[in-house]
Amino acid sequence: MSKSITPQEKDYSKWYNDIVVEADLADHSAVRGCMVIKPHGYAIWEIMQHTLDKMFKETGHVNAYFPLFIPKSLFEAEEKNAEGFAKECAVVTHYRLKTNPNDKTKLIVDPDAKLEEELIVRPTSEAIIWSTYKTWIQSYRDLPILINQWANVVRWEMRTRLFLRTTEFLWQEGHTAHSTKEEAVIETEKMLNVYADFVENYMAVPVLKGVKSINERFAGAEDTYCIEALMQDGKALQAGTSHFLGQNFAKAFDVKFADKNGKLEYVWATSWGVSTRLMGALIMSHSDNNGLVIPPKLAPVQVVIVPIYKGEEGLKKVSEHALKLKADLQSKGISVKYDDRDTQRPGFKFAEHELKGIPVRIAIGERDIENGTIEIARRDLLTKEVIKVTEADNYIADLLHAIQKNLYDKAIERRTKMTSYANNYEEFKKLLDEKGGFIYAHWDGTSETEEKIKEETKATIRCIPLNNKQEQGTCIYSGKPSSQKVVFARAY
Amino acid sequence: MSKSITPQEKDYSKWYNDIVVEADLADHSAVRGCMVIKPHGYAIWEIMQHTLDKMFKETGHVNAYFPLFIPKSLFEAEEKNAEGFAKECAVVTHYRLKTNPNDKTKLIVDPDAKLEEELIVRPTSEAIIWSTYKTWIQSYRDLPILINQWANVVRWEMRTRLFLRTTEFLWQEGHTAHSTKEEAVIETEKMLNVYADFVENYMAVPVLKGVKSINERFAGAEDTYCIEALMQDGKALQAGTSHFLGQNFAKAFDVKFADKNGKLEYVWATSWGVSTRLMGALIMSHSDNNGLVIPPKLAPVQVVIVPIYKGEEGLKKVSEHALKLKADLQSKGISVKYDDRDTQRPGFKFAEHELKGIPVRIAIGERDIENGTIEIARRDLLTKEVIKVTEADNYIADLLHAIQKNLYDKAIERRTKMTSYANNYEEFKKLLDEKGGFIYAHWDGTSETEEKIKEETKATIRCIPLNNKQEQGTCIYSGKPSSQKVVFARAY
Repeated sequence: MSKSITPQEKDYSKWYNDIVVEADLADHSAVRGCMVIKPHGYAIWEIMQHTLDKMFKETGHVNAYFPLFIPKSLFEAEEKNAEGFAKECAVVTHYRLKTNPNDKTKLIVDPDAKLEEELIVRPTSEAIIWSTYKTWIQSYRDLPILINQWANVVRWEMRTRLFLRTTEFLWQEGHTAHSTKEEAVIETEKMLNVYADFVENYMAVPVLKGVKSINERFAGAEDTYCIEALMQDGKALQAGTSHFLGQNFAKAFDVKFADKNGKLEYVWATSWGVSTRLMGALIMSHSDNNGLVIPPKLAPVQVVIVPIYKGEEGLKKVSEHALKLKADLQSKGISVKYDDRDTQRPGFKFAEHELKGIPVRIAIGERDIENGTIEIARRDLLTKEVIKVTEADNYIADLLHAIQKNLYDKAIERRTKMTSYANNYEEFKKLLDEKGGFIYAHWDGTSETEEKIKEETKATIRCIPLNNKQEQGTCIYSGKPSSQKVVFARAY
Repeated sequence: MSKSITPQEKDYSKWYNDIVVEADLADHSAVRGCMVIKPHGYAIWEIMQHTLDKMFKETGHVNAYFPLFIPKSLFEAEEKNAEGFAKECAVVTHYRLKTNPNDKTKLIVDPDAKLEEELIVRPTSEAIIWSTYKTWIQSYRDLPILINQWANVVRWEMRTRLFLRTTEFLWQEGHTAHSTKEEAVIETEKMLNVYADFVENYMAVPVLKGVKSINERFAGAEDTYCIEALMQDGKALQAGTSHFLGQNFAKAFDVKFADKNGKLEYVWATSWGVSTRLMGALIMSHSDNNGLVIPPKLAPVQVVIVPIYKGEEGLKKVSEHALKLKADLQSKGISVKYDDRDTQRPGFKFAEHELKGIPVRIAIGERDIENGTIEIARRDLLTKEVIKVTEADNYIADLLHAIQKNLYDKAIERRTKMTSYANNYEEFKKLLDEKGGFIYAHWDGTSETEEKIKEETKATIRCIPLNNKQEQGTCIYSGKPSSQKVVFARAY
């Protein structure tokens, strides 16, 4: 167990923070609520980006870039959206600093450089993008528009946590425009499925696919689809959302198209996004008291080789074998690092690579060379075994698949254990406090009941699962009739 | 010649703007001075990014991400840097909007949400990064730090032009920390060479490598190295800069390291960047009155195939051959698009692909299939030829190399023609007005002379070339002794 990391069972929240900082993923910055994403964390995020970007392109999307700033008058055009974000907006009011006349080494905001209209730092880009789409869309021939943007956004959060809730975060936001409602709904669902595919098959995190209740809907959407994951501590985490925006933004920005008969119609819209918050979901799905655990498909380094040797001659001998093995593994498409630093001992290196979550560690010593063996340690199970070096490439390729699968299977098993069904409110509260996890319960479908439950228990409706089983019952809170159970949880 | 594009010879500046907008590279936005980078423009930028990113990683760098905002007190810590950017800073002063009490549909800045300390939207990240490095660096073991960041930055420009000078732009900024001056200088030069390699070998734009005069130095640098390119109209464009920052930022943020003997020393620094401005350099190096010309190495689509057919049966027959050709070319690593849109005629498609700069266009008609031929048009020369389809894959692979080389050769030839030597000030002014381009002239080395020449002619010293020929002479302006000729030009 790493000494620098608070054990999960002692304080899960402190454990999380320790992992983020000690595994060199991110750090707090001098700016309130903003994080620095450190090289190891950013390298994982890059793989997430590249994987998702490929998936977006394969589903017909292209990238573009829209301004960071949104003039206030555009921002307020779609009222619900504006209302939803107004309370957490960073606002640019001036465009110049000047020397402080009382202290020449200091700067002050130049009062003569006040903007006529304030600029909002984008918390999301629907407003600026739909004000642009207005100039791009005239006819059905201009549709669909299938654009994605990789960008930073700012939401002024009062309580922040590294990756999970930061004032500035990195994300991608898709913004599509369609000629029919049906096509927009299909797009919304398609992108939800892309997200689910990515989170399950790359991050090894199982998700529930569903629709949000009105209360939890994105401001300005007609429907918000989501994927919900369950963390080790039994709290839910919204891992991605895909919104059917109806014609709300088209109406706010007067974006119409001429259909094949020349009739003018408002355009239909979707938007969808995932963010650096996924890093939080990754950590809280697989990591342990020894540090980070990275699924092989997202690991910047999948295999690290550590030489065990005495003296320069010993290192030379071991290195020869290690570098050959490295080349063999690389030729199988495996990313390998040979850690031959002479400033650190093997034990230090083992602990460091464990802390940073590298899936497979190989040790090669002089005796191994004589025996034609290597020692392999897998990060997920913390087990070691000795194998023949001649079998290493196939063995390790298979092992990486096995680790990926094991992480997913363990997460599924945990979720199954942590999923409960509550038949009444007392049971519901007891489950929440004693077990946590996802709790299926009947709900009368009203926002009022949802708010009461949230007030009293801090649990929210995570989603109404897609293809949910329809069954008659009574709401656990109001006793009113209900046609289905929905999924409650306390959430990040 | 495209009707939508103003000819170069009529108005080069208008031509440039027409290319950017008509070739779907970028557009003006609703935000003063900010651009929208459209999908075609962004796709080229993505290839630039990926290529550079690979080059940075191959030279040992890793990516990270630092906050968008810089607290004013940190921003002003390095005085020269702060002074250099103070006049063009977007300043965040508030973190919330509220409903306008006089008009419930409007929002106003909430005066109760004024920040205690204003935040500067980063115009460059030395300040925020060095305030972070202070916490990362204790000993020589922590050095070097070789970090790059891909980010957006904001500089409040009064006169903006798409790609060349926008309030917000995208860039990368490398920020490295070293234990010795020598190592930092080597890094500065290494990254200048990486930039030169990229701009010459991918963008097909020849550059002069040199050092800036004090006047043109980055605010806070000890030395600014640069690459300077020459545009078609004879104006220079600074394509990238690499700064040796000395210990200026280490001193401003008190960043010291213990050397091997335990002695505390200030850390040495470099920073280096290129931006979406490179898109402007690309356009103004190769494009013509028909539209954009993209060097094959940066083209999102290198080859487009247009079917020539009559009726559905005809399309079916042509498509079969076209798709086979597409697959053949793709297996050679060539990116190919098959444009089988039935909403547009071939002539329209030809003009569109020409406008967008696709390097090679192939036309296949029903008669071609009978003859076993295809028609190939190259964008750079606007020439056409008919070749046997069986030779197509090798032929086109070679052709793409030939186009890349031809663009570079043409640019070199133009630069040679547009490079002059002035022996006195009269000659200098005449050359500037009548010919433009790079003008080598003796300079006395003083800022005063440089400023006078700039005032009187709008020409600046672009650089003092690396390994510049040392020769005795007299300054064209002051008549004082000079030991070398430096390069002047009017510049973007």
